[in-house]
Amino acid sequence: MSVPDLTSFAERWDRRHLLDLESLSAEEITILLDVASRLKEATEGCRRKLSLLSGKTCANLFFENSTRTRNSFSLAAKRLGADTVEFGSSGSSTAKGETFADTAKTIEAMGVDWVVTRHGTPGTPNLLARELGCCVLNAGDGPHEHPTQGLLDLLTIRQHRGSLEGLTVALVGDIAHSRTARSNIWGLKRMGAHVIICGPPTLVSPRWQELGFEVAHHLDEILPRCDVLNLLRIQFERQHARPFPSVREYAALYAMNAARMRQAKENILIMAPGPINRGVEITPEVADGPHSVILEQVTNGIAVRMSALYLLSAADDRYRNANKASA
Amino acid sequence: MSVPDLTSFAERWDRRHLLDLESLSAEEITILLDVASRLKEATEGCRRKLSLLSGKTCANLFFENSTRTRNSFSLAAKRLGADTVEFGSSGSSTAKGETFADTAKTIEAMGVDWVVTRHGTPGTPNLLARELGCCVLNAGDGPHEHPTQGLLDLLTIRQHRGSLEGLTVALVGDIAHSRTARSNIWGLKRMGAHVIICGPPTLVSPRWQELGFEVAHHLDEILPRCDVLNLLRIQFERQHARPFPSVREYAALYAMNAARMRQAKENILIMAPGPINRGVEITPEVADGPHSVILEQVTNGIAVRMSALYLLSAADDRYRNANKASA
Amino acid sequence: MSVPDLTSFAERWDRRHLLDLESLSAEEITILLDVASRLKEATEGCRRKLSLLSGKTCANLFFENSTRTRNSFSLAAKRLGADTVEFGSSGSSTAKGETFADTAKTIEAMGVDWVVTRHGTPGTPNLLARELGCCVLNAGDGPHEHPTQGLLDLLTIRQHRGSLEGLTVALVGDIAHSRTARSNIWGLKRMGAHVIICGPPTLVSPRWQELGFEVAHHLDEILPRCDVLNLLRIQFERQHARPFPSVREYAALYAMNAARMRQAKENILIMAPGPINRGVEITPEVADGPHSVILEQVTNGIAVRMSALYLLSAADDRYRNANKASA
Repeated sequence: MSVPDLTSFAERWDRRHLLDLESLSAEEITILLDVASRLKEATEGCRRKLSLLSGKTCANLFFENSTRTRNSFSLAAKRLGADTVEFGSSGSSTAKGETFADTAKTIEAMGVDWVVTRHGTPGTPNLLARELGCCVLNAGDGPHEHPTQGLLDLLTIRQHRGSLEGLTVALVGDIAHSRTARSNIWGLKRMGAHVIICGPPTLVSPRWQELGFEVAHHLDEILPRCDVLNLLRIQFERQHARPFPSVREYAALYAMNAARMRQAKENILIMAPGPINRGVEITPEVADGPHSVILEQVTNGIAVRMSALYLLSAADDRYRNANKASA
Repeated sequence: MSVPDLTSFAERWDRRHLLDLESLSAEEITILLDVASRLKEATEGCRRKLSLLSGKTCANLFFENSTRTRNSFSLAAKRLGADTVEFGSSGSSTAKGETFADTAKTIEAMGVDWVVTRHGTPGTPNLLARELGCCVLNAGDGPHEHPTQGLLDLLTIRQHRGSLEGLTVALVGDIAHSRTARSNIWGLKRMGAHVIICGPPTLVSPRWQELGFEVAHHLDEILPRCDVLNLLRIQFERQHARPFPSVREYAALYAMNAARMRQAKENILIMAPGPINRGVEITPEVADGPHSVILEQVTNGIAVRMSALYLLSAADDRYRNANKASA
Repeated sequence: MSVPDLTSFAERWDRRHLLDLESLSAEEITILLDVASRLKEATEGCRRKLSLLSGKTCANLFFENSTRTRNSFSLAAKRLGADTVEFGSSGSSTAKGETFADTAKTIEAMGVDWVVTRHGTPGTPNLLARELGCCVLNAGDGPHEHPTQGLLDLLTIRQHRGSLEGLTVALVGDIAHSRTARSNIWGLKRMGAHVIICGPPTLVSPRWQELGFEVAHHLDEILPRCDVLNLLRIQFERQHARPFPSVREYAALYAMNAARMRQAKENILIMAPGPINRGVEITPEVADGPHSVILEQVTNGIAVRMSALYLLSAADDRYRNANKASA
């Protein structure tokens, strides 16, 4: 397979860490998506390998359970020829009294190029970016952000609509607990989409309205205007207080089903970050229907993670060479 | 190392999935074993690497504990240059309410070429073969089948005896809970061996006799006629009701020991799928004796898994190219 | 990256197993450290890959929790182009009644070149070295030895001081439970260093004095003479009886802090095997201060493990070729 020439993109990219989408410019997001598209094509839909990052090593440092995101990052690294190494919380040094920063510094001292981290505490990736000399990628920090999930959603929409500018995109469901929602909100806004935040009042903070976003509590009221619906999973495992009377009540108001599809635009895109709860936020005929791009999102997850690993690494190489030259 | 030319075998192979041995023809089993032999030789006894499947990715999706079979598949994939990725039940999306098919489709959408699956429910691999676009390999579905275990047993016998035709092979022990037994029974029968199913009545269904197999309840009665004994492990962890009074009673009737070896043919082969319980189904002097081929079976496990990955992948490539051409 | 020519070292190295430092000669330790230095340099500080051991496979067989040492061995293997495979105790065949030796023989039969093992029982690696045909590396056997940890400590000191001969090195803390201490003691002694064993009487056996080592119970009494301090972690998880009244009492007597640094030699090296307990055996200003080489130790861990994998494998290749020639 021929390796695509991505240097013109790398030259315009300066960051060594991917911590959130809130702080990225529209140009930076565009570079990430452009490189992701090229890498997706060059790897035949993320199915083949390139030797773009051979000899480099990606460490996954996950302090919350994750198979999907962890493996998506691992596969992205391997598809570019890099090696991977897995760290986690169970049986780890943190359990023996080590600080999180010391754990991460130890991993860095093993000679890794990227640390991909997931942690329950917001801001943890920022802490690592300050403490470590290598690249840091946020794979989810509490309810704060999950930037590569936001990017894969943006890429999926862009592939279907050409551009994000002017589209109406609704995020539906459990906004309160969702880092996916946050990364989508900031990324979509930056790229010129109109964002509607829709869910029960218990799961949608009025703060969003103050920040200038449209807030809705009834899906049916906004549905006819939407170009894209992103159906967030009800994270039962994160909810101590029950934010709605029952799954049935939730589904009645917010589940995307065949009846609602008839009220939607003809070319509406149905998205979900997965894992999906069939019969809760989405019914099988919608999940498996022609408007659903749920599995494309998964493939695009590999693409945007390859893109992020590549761009951060290119910036890091420049930074290290500059340091060497000035030393 | 020189890569062997296997195209003449691949051309005669049509399946994209390996779900069982029951549905394979003698010619298909022969192709699988022939390719396994050549790959074993080309990798110096499964110890070295070939670049036959570089750039491809094998996903292990195991819903039952397994280190041995999982690693055997992983090593087989790596020995052919492929990458591997591990999915499982603990901490996975299935635990968050996702269906098994959705989990598998998500894994496929990450761009994998094979899904190797183990699940407690018979028929699960068949479900995946219908739902997925990539190759599916059954690594054990409940008590139903474990086809690569059957193949490695066939390969081991064939390497020692040249052919399976006309040999008398006894499967001894826990037939009721054993997918290894089932895959052996169908594979041996197809290849022309005479199969004896031997064990306590509580662990051997009379159905086997109705299907035309010889059934025996006393090892001593059949032992002198056997060319091969395959000693199944008593799977204590699967038995809720106790199918025999004690381990001592079981060993008295079915354990292969030095005394019984004197009643056996001079060139008898002693096999066991492992892990073995020394002192239960086999005594140390037999397990470590000159007739035992238990460790060869392990090596041949890598060989038949390399063979299956290679052949399925070749058929899949043809299938995809044909679809592309007709599109 | 250019692969260094290490054949002159390999020719002088005869062992196929690395079980302890107690039985190694000064020349053998020197070869291990020399090769480690060259590999560290050739991999740009253990950050890049060489193809020295391509096609070989390293199996980790860990029966005690470990992320750090396990990953350090894995990375060392990958940096030399080898593949890795992970075995462990949970969900493994040992849980199904298999003996430890049978588990290891099964892994060897999968065609691996090295088995790296950690086990709670002293001598387990020696058992494997007798039973297996491949190379065995001890990654910690109970409180007995952890030879690669000893080697990485020796390499770190040598890199800073040029030689170990005549240096005064104190091992401070929990000697009783520490395999790191034992491997350091034997390695340092062999290389001509003066070793002081310092800790509370409950954690330092009088036997060390009988063996000719200096034993001290007060850090302050020996501190001014020390060239190197190696601060062992208090392994709270290994202590059933409490060997000292409280963490506060321990820290008062043995913690390395700013006040004690003023009593130390100007060029003292501060080492710790990690994970460190900040505020117990070491204070943050010392751990992060200019005398601390704790993170260099981690990097050198990759270097000495690459060295051991390389040298054992070279001896093993010679041994196998000799066997083939004589067969």
